[in-house]
Amino acid sequence: MLGISELSRKMPASPIRKLVPYAEAAKKRGIKVYHLNIGQPDIDSPKEALEPIRNIDLKLVSYPHSAGIESYRRGLAKYYQDVNINLTYEQIIVTIGGSEALQIGLKVCCDPGDEVIVFEPFYTNYNTFGLMAGVRFVPVTTTIENGFALPPMSEVEKYITPRTKAILINSPGNPTGTLYSKEDILQLGEIVKKHNLFLLSDEVYREFCYSDEPHFSCMNIPGAEQNVILIDSVSKRYSLCGVRIGCIASHNKDVMSAVLRFAQARLCAPALGQIASEGALATPREYFEAVKQEYIDRRDLMIERLNKIPGVYSPMPMGAFYTTARLPIDDADKFAQWLLESFNYKGQTVMVAPAAGFYATPGKGLDEVRIAYVLKKEDIANAMDCLEEALKQYPGRR
Amino acid sequence: MLGISELSRKMPASPIRKLVPYAEAAKKRGIKVYHLNIGQPDIDSPKEALEPIRNIDLKLVSYPHSAGIESYRRGLAKYYQDVNINLTYEQIIVTIGGSEALQIGLKVCCDPGDEVIVFEPFYTNYNTFGLMAGVRFVPVTTTIENGFALPPMSEVEKYITPRTKAILINSPGNPTGTLYSKEDILQLGEIVKKHNLFLLSDEVYREFCYSDEPHFSCMNIPGAEQNVILIDSVSKRYSLCGVRIGCIASHNKDVMSAVLRFAQARLCAPALGQIASEGALATPREYFEAVKQEYIDRRDLMIERLNKIPGVYSPMPMGAFYTTARLPIDDADKFAQWLLESFNYKGQTVMVAPAAGFYATPGKGLDEVRIAYVLKKEDIANAMDCLEEALKQYPGRR
Repeated sequence: MLGISELSRKMPASPIRKLVPYAEAAKKRGIKVYHLNIGQPDIDSPKEALEPIRNIDLKLVSYPHSAGIESYRRGLAKYYQDVNINLTYEQIIVTIGGSEALQIGLKVCCDPGDEVIVFEPFYTNYNTFGLMAGVRFVPVTTTIENGFALPPMSEVEKYITPRTKAILINSPGNPTGTLYSKEDILQLGEIVKKHNLFLLSDEVYREFCYSDEPHFSCMNIPGAEQNVILIDSVSKRYSLCGVRIGCIASHNKDVMSAVLRFAQARLCAPALGQIASEGALATPREYFEAVKQEYIDRRDLMIERLNKIPGVYSPMPMGAFYTTARLPIDDADKFAQWLLESFNYKGQTVMVAPAAGFYATPGKGLDEVRIAYVLKKEDIANAMDCLEEALKQYPGRR
Repeated sequence: MLGISELSRKMPASPIRKLVPYAEAAKKRGIKVYHLNIGQPDIDSPKEALEPIRNIDLKLVSYPHSAGIESYRRGLAKYYQDVNINLTYEQIIVTIGGSEALQIGLKVCCDPGDEVIVFEPFYTNYNTFGLMAGVRFVPVTTTIENGFALPPMSEVEKYITPRTKAILINSPGNPTGTLYSKEDILQLGEIVKKHNLFLLSDEVYREFCYSDEPHFSCMNIPGAEQNVILIDSVSKRYSLCGVRIGCIASHNKDVMSAVLRFAQARLCAPALGQIASEGALATPREYFEAVKQEYIDRRDLMIERLNKIPGVYSPMPMGAFYTTARLPIDDADKFAQWLLESFNYKGQTVMVAPAAGFYATPGKGLDEVRIAYVLKKEDIANAMDCLEEALKQYPGRR
């Protein structure tokens, strides 16, 4: 019969996208909408990334090697050395964004029906990738009261079954900005070693850590070299979301040889994006320092403003550029829609991402929203004015 | 346990890649290797594609819309109008190459365990995409004696089972260069309408047709608007293999809304590649006329030379830039390796793609090779000299 597949019917529409028509309608009514809902940096890409594109002297754009352009892979190995991660270029395969890296990683570790433990709230598309691979994500809940910290490992172990193949972490993470400490990571390392699990470590926000300690990569867990698979991307690091370049890396040879076979099936990652990403490797340290300071300033402003609003609570996120905050409301989905449909303050309103979409457990996060600080400080201040006023007026306030 | 998945272990290494180390060793011995094995055009990309890249004025490369940059989709709709295919831009979603278009197409049509009918020999990676989607490709064999023509539809119908969801065709096609006529396509249309099947039509070689009739797209089968899903790519059309831009298009709304959900999961297709592809839409007709004439000249030279070699037979391919030829040999795998390992003629040899890798039925195509005419005429002539001499010397000659 001419019907679409069961998988197609199960594929979720993004929860944020449901709000897009309301945002568009608000803009048509002349209302300025501050987009606190998006995870796309507004910071300029380093000029080192775009110059090689402007100076490109190719006559035709042919297929690069399926594993990535060799000079880029060698450059990536050097980048990793600089952030204290030991990798040779053979242990790195360039992917079509972090999205493809994670999709391939899941397919390499898991057969359909296998389970992956993940700490909720987590990046929504993990669910979609799981669905596509037939993999079940088993959520272990973290709570806002606890600053979304890792639960004790004895608690995590309760979720391990004979079908568990991997634990997936994202630190610093989307949607909470939580950064796991070296001790956290080492504890996770003990668990994956003890139970022979893969540890998929999504470290795309590595450059956005605001603690005094440097980021501690899962790649540096002693004795877990065969367990750890690194998922990475240039999207956030260099504000290059659109080039679709990421990578997957591991010391596990079986894993990397399987990754290569998946990479060969789709021929190659985008050549132009690889050229920009290779250029970006020359980005000077000052660029990151300036970006980091900008995000810290924005974060400090936003978190201070949030916690001053009666009934609102946000932990202090130590990484990435998000926070997940609790609001004094009945339902964040309704609130987010109301903000766009029925509210404005001096002709302005805000768009937020309801956090329920980041939880796999039904009923969790109903009064939480993800807020990204990818706006200039002045805009953040205006957006906070709107949010404060909205929470006074919202009929579903609790 | 810490082992890779069953799917990973099943993922095939490319049959051509097995030969790569032999080709590299031959080059190290100072032998010139003519690559008849590859499907990558050597023709320059149109300048219209690369100029917008050189003039790019973005400050950061942000995520384009998941469905593709709207101006590019509108441009694509106009391109299709120009080649007599009626599509609005909403009926087109930009993908990461034809590879992703086909992968999404399969996932939209088929659940794991479903079957897709395909005419062998066919593009090897179809198998890999099928494996990844859990879909079984059911091969219907076409033969070199018959010029790889479509079998009678009564024969095709024998392969339809309750699990059959689609027929996949690629005309003009890789690896044989066979072009189906309007009558062929209309017959296939009758079958998919009669049995309520999808028709996945991979038309990436549309611009490379050497018959007097224009290419007849499956999109123009009357009454099959809900059945046909178009798979397309800019890779071959504009010699832009590396930009990774394709598209999927259909008049079927359920299909396109499912495609969009898959597209949202991976966020977007590469921005820089979309910019180049949008530029390429302005390529003047003369570019294609020149390219087409060049391929016709190369094809005529190659086929004439092949058929003059005793024991060799090639049909006259009417599209793309490949032929699949029969050689008087025991085993094309052995012959291809021998060419690189043990043979040279005046310091030169050729690399060919053994055709068995393009058949799903074991034992088929053992004495056939795929040869691409993506070399200059002078190089083709030299390569044919090598092949002719090699077939005199090869110990496994029959």
